[in-house]
Amino acid sequence: MYNYKMTVSYDGSNFRGWQKQGNTDNTIQGKLESIAGSLAETFGVGGEAVDVNGAGRTDAGVHAVGQTANFKLRKYAEASYVKEYFNKYLPEAIRVVAVEEADERFHARLCAVKKTYRYNIFVGEEMNVFLRKYAYFPDLKEKSLDLDAMRQAAERLVGIHDFSGFCTKVPKNKSAVRKIYSVNISESDLVKGLVTVEFCGNGFLYNQVRIMTGTLLEIGEGKRTAESIGDIFKANDRAMAGFTAPPYGLMLMSVEY
Amino acid sequence: MYNYKMTVSYDGSNFRGWQKQGNTDNTIQGKLESIAGSLAETFGVGGEAVDVNGAGRTDAGVHAVGQTANFKLRKYAEASYVKEYFNKYLPEAIRVVAVEEADERFHARLCAVKKTYRYNIFVGEEMNVFLRKYAYFPDLKEKSLDLDAMRQAAERLVGIHDFSGFCTKVPKNKSAVRKIYSVNISESDLVKGLVTVEFCGNGFLYNQVRIMTGTLLEIGEGKRTAESIGDIFKANDRAMAGFTAPPYGLMLMSVEY
Repeated sequence: MYNYKMTVSYDGSNFRGWQKQGNTDNTIQGKLESIAGSLAETFGVGGEAVDVNGAGRTDAGVHAVGQTANFKLRKYAEASYVKEYFNKYLPEAIRVVAVEEADERFHARLCAVKKTYRYNIFVGEEMNVFLRKYAYFPDLKEKSLDLDAMRQAAERLVGIHDFSGFCTKVPKNKSAVRKIYSVNISESDLVKGLVTVEFCGNGFLYNQVRIMTGTLLEIGEGKRTAESIGDIFKANDRAMAGFTAPPYGLMLMSVEY
Repeated sequence: MYNYKMTVSYDGSNFRGWQKQGNTDNTIQGKLESIAGSLAETFGVGGEAVDVNGAGRTDAGVHAVGQTANFKLRKYAEASYVKEYFNKYLPEAIRVVAVEEADERFHARLCAVKKTYRYNIFVGEEMNVFLRKYAYFPDLKEKSLDLDAMRQAAERLVGIHDFSGFCTKVPKNKSAVRKIYSVNISESDLVKGLVTVEFCGNGFLYNQVRIMTGTLLEIGEGKRTAESIGDIFKANDRAMAGFTAPPYGLMLMSVEY
């Protein structure tokens, strides 16, 4: 079997997320597997389903700059041919930006050691029309966020913790302990009003990034304190954390191996 | 009459351009006039059509960061109320970003002294999915543009010229002479592959920016020389200029008075 690693970028606005839900569904994985199947067929291995494993199962509406996936073919194809083949049949909102041959043991999800997600927040009087599908526009009373308080809270998220309190579905019989390397909050020089929160960690639980963002936003609005992060860790109670920030502000930036 | 100047931002992707084409059309002007009419009605001047004059009649698919328009009301309304009223009823892809009271003689198109348009070009192996509706992705053989040649050509466009050769419909009984203050070509630091061409002038003819961009692109691809600009000015012949670059890469950035 020949194993291929690919980097995929997508505008998730009009898709039902990464994970396939059926044969004719509108998911990123569904689209990729359908094309991977046709690709296998052109190499004479017809009728065979090809699994495309993604590093992160992004929710409906979530975007990706550098999602990573892998899949296997029985017959050899040039990486450049594979890339061209996918992009020929994919909708414009999904692009395979890189394909390379990988070791047969490589698995995009199981081998990932570091993932970076970015959450875009727009702060201003009126929403920037070009960001309306790519950034969350909170209804702020003060039209500003206390970024200092958010940064203090972000520091408390960094490190090795049980993130059960920041997760919608706690995994059964599996650890909810993850390591966060960094949480950086910055204001864009280029786009006035754009605030980005970049999370870098070894892995994230279901909805974890969106709940951490919602919690940081509530801190930025003065609705809760930076210290409340410690309380959530102590209690491991989802109800104590902030709201789940909407999916369209979230982007999977990169996956490292 | 109370005259209001407003700055409007829009994602032109799903509209049929600025200029209204009927009563129930999907144009930016049509949307604004319909709301301006309702606004006049709430002030007791019902049944009256309100004209909204835009500084630039952008084509279908063209975007605006800072389109400027003006309209008049018989009764006084606070500028902040007017802004809020428009944004309450406008679709998300159109936002009124500023409203101020203006002198009664102010007319957004007739009084404009300087307009800035930006054309976004994306150069790379695969299109950036987030720019697909906001930048043109030329099918380049070399996957690169000769920016030096384009800059030399851009210099030749600067100044006072008869731009008939760079215009789809030459105005009848009107001058085709316009002044271009600057044409700046730059590569984005932030978005790899994004090349922007910014045109600043006292006014532009129909399709002029898109034809100038198409001509610069052909120069960047080596299909024609920077010197060909002078030949187009000598002949004033549209057929000698380059192709009309597609609308979705174009943005009206600002209008000065």
